[in-house]
Amino acid sequence: MTADAPKKPNVKARLPRGLGDRGPADLAAERKMMEKVREVYERYGFEAVETPFIEYTEALGKFLPDTDRPNEGVFSFQDDDEQWMSLRYDLTAPLARYVAENFDALPKPYRSYRAGWVFRNEKPGPGRFRQFMQFDADTVGASSPAADAEICMMAADTLEALGLRGKYVIKVNNRKLLDGVMDSVRIPIEKRLAVLRAIDKLDRLGIAEVTLLLGLLGRTDGSGDHTKGAGLDENQIEAILSLVTSAPLMVGRDSEFLTKAEFKSWMLSLPESERGQFQFHEPTGWAGLISNHKTLLNLEKRFAAEALCSEGIRELREISLLTYAAGYRANNIRIDPSVVRGLEYYTGPVFEAELFVADEAGKSISFGSVGGGGRYDGLVGRFRGEPVPATGFSIGVSRLFAALKAVKSNTVTGAAKPGPVVVLVLDKDRLGDYQKLVTTLRHAGIRAEMYLGSAGMNAQLKYADKRGSLCAVIQGSNEREKGEVMIRDLVLGAQLAGGAKERADYLELRQKAQFPVAVDGLVVAVKEVLARHS
Amino acid sequence: MTADAPKKPNVKARLPRGLGDRGPADLAAERKMMEKVREVYERYGFEAVETPFIEYTEALGKFLPDTDRPNEGVFSFQDDDEQWMSLRYDLTAPLARYVAENFDALPKPYRSYRAGWVFRNEKPGPGRFRQFMQFDADTVGASSPAADAEICMMAADTLEALGLRGKYVIKVNNRKLLDGVMDSVRIPIEKRLAVLRAIDKLDRLGIAEVTLLLGLLGRTDGSGDHTKGAGLDENQIEAILSLVTSAPLMVGRDSEFLTKAEFKSWMLSLPESERGQFQFHEPTGWAGLISNHKTLLNLEKRFAAEALCSEGIRELREISLLTYAAGYRANNIRIDPSVVRGLEYYTGPVFEAELFVADEAGKSISFGSVGGGGRYDGLVGRFRGEPVPATGFSIGVSRLFAALKAVKSNTVTGAAKPGPVVVLVLDKDRLGDYQKLVTTLRHAGIRAEMYLGSAGMNAQLKYADKRGSLCAVIQGSNEREKGEVMIRDLVLGAQLAGGAKERADYLELRQKAQFPVAVDGLVVAVKEVLARHS
Repeated sequence: MTADAPKKPNVKARLPRGLGDRGPADLAAERKMMEKVREVYERYGFEAVETPFIEYTEALGKFLPDTDRPNEGVFSFQDDDEQWMSLRYDLTAPLARYVAENFDALPKPYRSYRAGWVFRNEKPGPGRFRQFMQFDADTVGASSPAADAEICMMAADTLEALGLRGKYVIKVNNRKLLDGVMDSVRIPIEKRLAVLRAIDKLDRLGIAEVTLLLGLLGRTDGSGDHTKGAGLDENQIEAILSLVTSAPLMVGRDSEFLTKAEFKSWMLSLPESERGQFQFHEPTGWAGLISNHKTLLNLEKRFAAEALCSEGIRELREISLLTYAAGYRANNIRIDPSVVRGLEYYTGPVFEAELFVADEAGKSISFGSVGGGGRYDGLVGRFRGEPVPATGFSIGVSRLFAALKAVKSNTVTGAAKPGPVVVLVLDKDRLGDYQKLVTTLRHAGIRAEMYLGSAGMNAQLKYADKRGSLCAVIQGSNEREKGEVMIRDLVLGAQLAGGAKERADYLELRQKAQFPVAVDGLVVAVKEVLARHS
Repeated sequence: MTADAPKKPNVKARLPRGLGDRGPADLAAERKMMEKVREVYERYGFEAVETPFIEYTEALGKFLPDTDRPNEGVFSFQDDDEQWMSLRYDLTAPLARYVAENFDALPKPYRSYRAGWVFRNEKPGPGRFRQFMQFDADTVGASSPAADAEICMMAADTLEALGLRGKYVIKVNNRKLLDGVMDSVRIPIEKRLAVLRAIDKLDRLGIAEVTLLLGLLGRTDGSGDHTKGAGLDENQIEAILSLVTSAPLMVGRDSEFLTKAEFKSWMLSLPESERGQFQFHEPTGWAGLISNHKTLLNLEKRFAAEALCSEGIRELREISLLTYAAGYRANNIRIDPSVVRGLEYYTGPVFEAELFVADEAGKSISFGSVGGGGRYDGLVGRFRGEPVPATGFSIGVSRLFAALKAVKSNTVTGAAKPGPVVVLVLDKDRLGDYQKLVTTLRHAGIRAEMYLGSAGMNAQLKYADKRGSLCAVIQGSNEREKGEVMIRDLVLGAQLAGGAKERADYLELRQKAQFPVAVDGLVVAVKEVLARHS
């Protein structure tokens, strides 16, 4: 310790792990992104609602994927009357409580959206936060798959509005399919969580490794960590793998899976009422339709005998037909039976929004999920003693924001403003004069401030640089006597300082970089300088 | 219970006390209000920053006014490693942690703003919430009263921007005055909290009752509740009352306390350097200046002998001069030694924004405080072992919002949008057709939705009414065969149904209220109907 080191502080300035601060550029960009999401949700007729951060623990229920830690996962505390309360871990459980509490007053079906922070008391790790923001939309009171289809289209339109055309797919599956298959091959309840977890790794690990995870052996990864197998027999494994690989692989956006002649003959095999839904004159969309249709044919062929599966397939077909009628194709909204959503409350269709970004070589690679959702017909019913159909979608705001940064979307670039005009303080006893200059600028709508520290002129200019300011206003006694102020263009000034002396226009540049004006001309002169760099 | 009552639900749908939900109208209006606040803060050169909801308990410190419950007041829980964490109870303590943690990287002085929810684990009561939003702005690293003056002006400009001209006053006091007076008459530390609480009630109870609260007797209110007295002697009470009544009462905005001749002679008594700050040609502002000047003269006459008081008065004078130079008067920014702010961390100037609304008889009455703040030079220093000057202001967002509603400000009225255009579903097997109509409207930027429930046509129209929709789109088999849709103007329709039959223009009205158009003309026709009622 040196002699003039500060004395030891009382408290360490630090945050608990899994929590973070954010600065102006990220906040401005995220606000811009959120506004675009809100605009789409509003256009779809959804209305805003807000619930508090804290709910009774029993009202939230226990639906988190990590059932290994039943008493963790959420932040909880006891009220004065000893009742347990928790910070919400998603926005769906509180919505269910809200709808149940206000059931008679709400229009039904009730479409609503809400953005807000949620909390998970998980072990923090890289990219895992204990506080993160979600942006949800839900329809309560509609059992029709048309409600699920609408949610999928809205998710797609949201990503389109954010400039992600061609970079996303909304994948759709149905819990009834998974449950039906597991019923049909008699996979016991206690093994099912392990099965779902194994399927969830299909994208990342591939079929061979997932087969290991489904069987008795389990899987040992590169680092030597061993994951126990789910313990299925060969029959059971075959059924699961057959289900999750029902969707034909898509090779690029324009891939076709049937010839036009095959498509036409398939169309004619449909009942007339369904046929009317298709637009024959849209050849570019055929590939998409055919892809989803092939998936549904594969599913029907293999699983239609099981009643629950059959119901699931029928719902998926209706979603496919409605989204097709509205102009969406399988490259936008895709039936994919490998999708597993972690939360336990889903009862029907489930959705996941996957993004693709370019890697260093320009190849398109998966960025992973930026949102998901599904149908949860039991969640509102917990409060009402009767099932209330509901479906919804949740955007992971931080994930989506990171994705937009990764693709350099103009939604999130250039949202930050330049720093304020800084009025320097040279004579401490003329503060009132400087204050008047600042107030004049502010009243003209110009972002401006008076330097409030105690440093000299050079340090004040450095401060303006650090703020990213474009312009400074200077008034010493010379200027004051003449009723003038000096206007300094900090961008041109930096160019001059950076060795622009050799430039032919040096003198002209220097004159533009700093020039006096009468105090009355302050606003006009500052606006002129700001306009140079906007 | 009737026979077809639903079976008993598992969980009750309810919120813990002191927490609430909000709907679309309030949320849209509050967002509008927040944007105006943000705009002013940005114009003053403040930049956005965000900190998380959870901090280490020791980092937040214990500065809440309610020291009766040292372990309550905040919501706390233990981390895996047994360290205590808390939900933030304001936005100032987390800012201090943030600045200390990023001290070298931040520009200094560092001006920042942030909006966010804070939490108090208090006994909830009418108008007392356990979760509420604040909108703060702070300047760290500037010890000059010019920083405090700037905060006061920004608070005033914020309320001006919200349309509250003539309805607010920013009151300014200084902790050094209160502390200096209590030192000078030797009020022991343990009595001081009771003294501050008594002063805080001056506005509401008046001098006589506050005198009871300061003395030995205490006060019994109308309901029989007794509050113990602070136990001061007559001397001490006189000093305190003399301090808190130093500001002359203002009788209306145009009241003057000196004649112009008196003002001129006072001006000439000032040193030349100070005199330059004033604009002689602004007679309308004199009353304001004179009011603050009179207050400062009263304070000097009585308390200048005490060093701490003298320092406090000097700081208040500088704030008064700077705000005057920038055009603010005592009806905007007013020196008022009766202001007490509850939080313990204030060390210098303190501010409070008071609003006035009209009562039923049109008389202006106080709505109370909508925000406040002050200088807290010790808070960042807790982390750094050296004092770091800081000052700031916090708007109570919900209070301000309630005030804007009370004065019927156009900032918060009319922010809610009309409901979406509803496309009715008459033939279930033509869902794809209806979906196409909705998608066409949405792609044209029109807020629209397909009816997703299972009810008949009349119930669907009632649903549209409940949503506040202006327009419905109807297609039955008749219309479909002709390639048409029926456009229904729900506002005109309601007028017709409400007995407009006697009107001379009945037939014309009926034709406008519902009319067929070709499917191709859907967007134009709907836009026309929406434009009728915008």
